[in-house]
Amino acid sequence: MLKIVAVGKMKDKRLEALLQDYLKRLQPMARLDIVEIKDSNPEKEAREMVGKLGSPGGNTLVVAMDEHGDDLTSRQMANLLGKSGSITFLIGGADGLAKETLQRCNRTIRLSSMTFTHEMARVLLAEQIYRGFSILNGKPYHRG
Amino acid sequence: MLKIVAVGKMKDKRLEALLQDYLKRLQPMARLDIVEIKDSNPEKEAREMVGKLGSPGGNTLVVAMDEHGDDLTSRQMANLLGKSGSITFLIGGADGLAKETLQRCNRTIRLSSMTFTHEMARVLLAEQIYRGFSILNGKPYHRG
Repeated sequence: MLKIVAVGKMKDKRLEALLQDYLKRLQPMARLDIVEIKDSNPEKEAREMVGKLGSPGGNTLVVAMDEHGDDLTSRQMANLLGKSGSITFLIGGADGLAKETLQRCNRTIRLSSMTFTHEMARVLLAEQIYRGFSILNGKPYHRG
Repeated sequence: MLKIVAVGKMKDKRLEALLQDYLKRLQPMARLDIVEIKDSNPEKEAREMVGKLGSPGGNTLVVAMDEHGDDLTSRQMANLLGKSGSITFLIGGADGLAKETLQRCNRTIRLSSMTFTHEMARVLLAEQIYRGFSILNGKPYHRG
């Protein structure tokens, strides 16, 4: 079971369409759900986000997406997806994830040292998950 | 004078529209031209790409976008844009940039340790250039 828990709606219709494309292309290989937390204030968002995670110590790997996180190659991402049954990825709003949320996570990884918009981050993460399953399934999508 | 020299057309209309948006939003602050090299074979693409660069030792900083390049934060990218008069960024095709092209570059930077599609890379680079000029001009676009 794969989930992306993210703050706020996708306002850009083009990015939303790209995201939906990756979810659809991923479907034969894995199910990825997007759970949206309502845009409010950082404390409330953090509380709601942690509320979606279930009890700590469960079987789900909780991964924070944060610019101070670890760099992974797409193959390392594929390995992470391959060995973990259930993963929930967290993407914050415009100000990133709260400290309390980061503490609840098992791992922190980053898409980039550069700051991207959080809508773009959601599309890129979905693309990396699709790319990861393509690698695991020997599909020709990923080159190099 | 800022340029992105990239291989191949933007096939995805949504990514092309996002790219055009960033170019338009950037216009009051800087002019960014996109120069497309025809998709062919790696040797020919490399020859055409280097042909667009003018003579080595000129005033233009040539920056390769390559996953083995340096990590920059968005603020460091802003500094690079601020201190360099003229920059040409190179983005390869599906197989990246040829070794001869990389050798002609003054710097190599990366958007990510993960592999993104080259169309996505073009949009992300334009967004980072827009973000960089927003930082340099004290606009509220960049937070954190």
